[in-house]
Amino acid sequence: MKTKIALIGFGTVGQGLCEILISKQDELKTKYGFDHSIVAISDLVKGSVYAEDGLDVKECLYLIDNDQSLTEYTAGPCVTGWDSLKTITHTNADVICELTFTDLVSGEPASTHCRTAFSSKKHVVTSNKGPAALFYNQLLSLAELNGVQFRIEGTVMSGTPVLNLVDGPLTGCRIFGFKGILNGTTNYILTGMEAGTSFETMLKKAQELGYAEVDPTGDIEGFDAMAKVIILANVIMGQNFKSGDVQRQGIAQITPTMIEEAKSKNTRWKLIGSVEINKNGDCNARVLPELVPLSHPLAGVSGATNALTFKTDLLGDVTIVGAGAGKIETGFSILNDILAIHRVKKSL
Amino acid sequence: MKTKIALIGFGTVGQGLCEILISKQDELKTKYGFDHSIVAISDLVKGSVYAEDGLDVKECLYLIDNDQSLTEYTAGPCVTGWDSLKTITHTNADVICELTFTDLVSGEPASTHCRTAFSSKKHVVTSNKGPAALFYNQLLSLAELNGVQFRIEGTVMSGTPVLNLVDGPLTGCRIFGFKGILNGTTNYILTGMEAGTSFETMLKKAQELGYAEVDPTGDIEGFDAMAKVIILANVIMGQNFKSGDVQRQGIAQITPTMIEEAKSKNTRWKLIGSVEINKNGDCNARVLPELVPLSHPLAGVSGATNALTFKTDLLGDVTIVGAGAGKIETGFSILNDILAIHRVKKSL
Repeated sequence: MKTKIALIGFGTVGQGLCEILISKQDELKTKYGFDHSIVAISDLVKGSVYAEDGLDVKECLYLIDNDQSLTEYTAGPCVTGWDSLKTITHTNADVICELTFTDLVSGEPASTHCRTAFSSKKHVVTSNKGPAALFYNQLLSLAELNGVQFRIEGTVMSGTPVLNLVDGPLTGCRIFGFKGILNGTTNYILTGMEAGTSFETMLKKAQELGYAEVDPTGDIEGFDAMAKVIILANVIMGQNFKSGDVQRQGIAQITPTMIEEAKSKNTRWKLIGSVEINKNGDCNARVLPELVPLSHPLAGVSGATNALTFKTDLLGDVTIVGAGAGKIETGFSILNDILAIHRVKKSL
Repeated sequence: MKTKIALIGFGTVGQGLCEILISKQDELKTKYGFDHSIVAISDLVKGSVYAEDGLDVKECLYLIDNDQSLTEYTAGPCVTGWDSLKTITHTNADVICELTFTDLVSGEPASTHCRTAFSSKKHVVTSNKGPAALFYNQLLSLAELNGVQFRIEGTVMSGTPVLNLVDGPLTGCRIFGFKGILNGTTNYILTGMEAGTSFETMLKKAQELGYAEVDPTGDIEGFDAMAKVIILANVIMGQNFKSGDVQRQGIAQITPTMIEEAKSKNTRWKLIGSVEINKNGDCNARVLPELVPLSHPLAGVSGATNALTFKTDLLGDVTIVGAGAGKIETGFSILNDILAIHRVKKSL
């Protein structure tokens, strides 16, 4: 049975997903029996289009590349102009990809999109940290109540397996803590500072490369890493953390002198997001610059790469290192979650 | 429905699995709805016992700890003395854990155990490299023909997710190469040599710690890593490699001078197992000492730890670092594979 997909939001990640689906259509059919169509795309700025038999995705990408609206779609019969909520409730999509912008304060409009999808008995796949960081447990309950899935691999370390690594290959292990480099921008800046470049120059470079936003506060002050710490703690350790539960400090205070001193002690400054359960069973969550010994796997993680060490009861430490961001990398996270939904559907 | 397990071979891994199952019985029931009994254990040296309603595993472990045979079992009605093949075919087990010794030349008796289990429509879970390195594709076909699973996570990097990482969290990516530290003994020796200790002293230490065998040839000369390279190439890259297809060299030629020279160039000697597809589509497999730049994630992997970098089309490099061996770590690989079988059964 064809998986019918609607994209809410058509920025980098949505376009990355479309590029992958176009180039891998045959491979996905042959290898996994996965047949799909993208039936709707709705974007606040770029317009909205719905075709119940599936859109010509190449035309959609062409329109965006040429600064045209999706309402200019001509490849076949379609309806245009539906807003996100109508697209979620009134199209024949069975998987909703929530790919709008991240708001870590209100979680909107993404959280409403998720709730509406679940109430309409549609699966949600998202890389949006807002709903996941603010309302994970609530949204998961609503999804389960409606017999659908809420999959969020892309919210942490793009498509590098983190949440799907725990749910499957680590099934049977208990995770009692983790420690990771969860923000690529700050790691890129710290790596450059170690090579002698100033904080300001590295920040400018990060902005030029698209790693950091024009207002880099979210990265530099550790808010982005904090959202990921909350998501990890709630998803893989069964916690119910809010932002007030995480001690947070960014990298703005790290000076060249501190970096030189660290080197002389065979250590390296890294912005580390971590959760550990202490002897009393209390769970402590932090985002802090930490001195990491060069012998630790996290010390060797340079540039915009991310890494995460899980502390497990049966396997000891398990570390995964990979891309933390990127159009295709995050697009893949969405694809992998859609394939996981397909796998369950297939076995039913 | 209860999963009924038979253990063929009752050495370190089998005992590790039993210890985990005893301590996690309630947790596995609550978290995953996994209910099980070990109905049979058959070991060439330690004896054999079968109880269709499940064995008292604590008594089995007690007997072994006290150098008694499993035939001395008294906890309930049972049959003793069945050999491995009769245990596979005549007990009510639905999952056979093949945990006998590794023979990389004949693959026996493990391969016959696997074939017999598949013909009896029973799943096989194993950490034995013999059948996997010599006959993977053949055995997989036989398993599929009989509608059962052949799961081998523990053959590479013990329970650290490798094969189950690719089959699931990396679904949708194509893997076109890998590069890894796949043998703990040689990595332990090289790490010690970097700190100034001689090869001979480190080898003796590795033997004392149980990392290396009394005859360490399999580790030192790269045969163990080669078996793992073959398994990885065949399972995750769809190859059909035999041992003759892998270029192999061990670490015996690495001298203290070479290690010092490497240091001065910001590199480090590692025994690397790798496969890459070149421009002509040819697949080159190697186990060789290689100079790894300190900036590469594999450089920071020290001691008996293992690590593997996958080269993927959508995510770039993804590296996983974790335990390469150990009683509980490998026992977990068997548990995780059994839980994967349970998950599929549950969804049917």
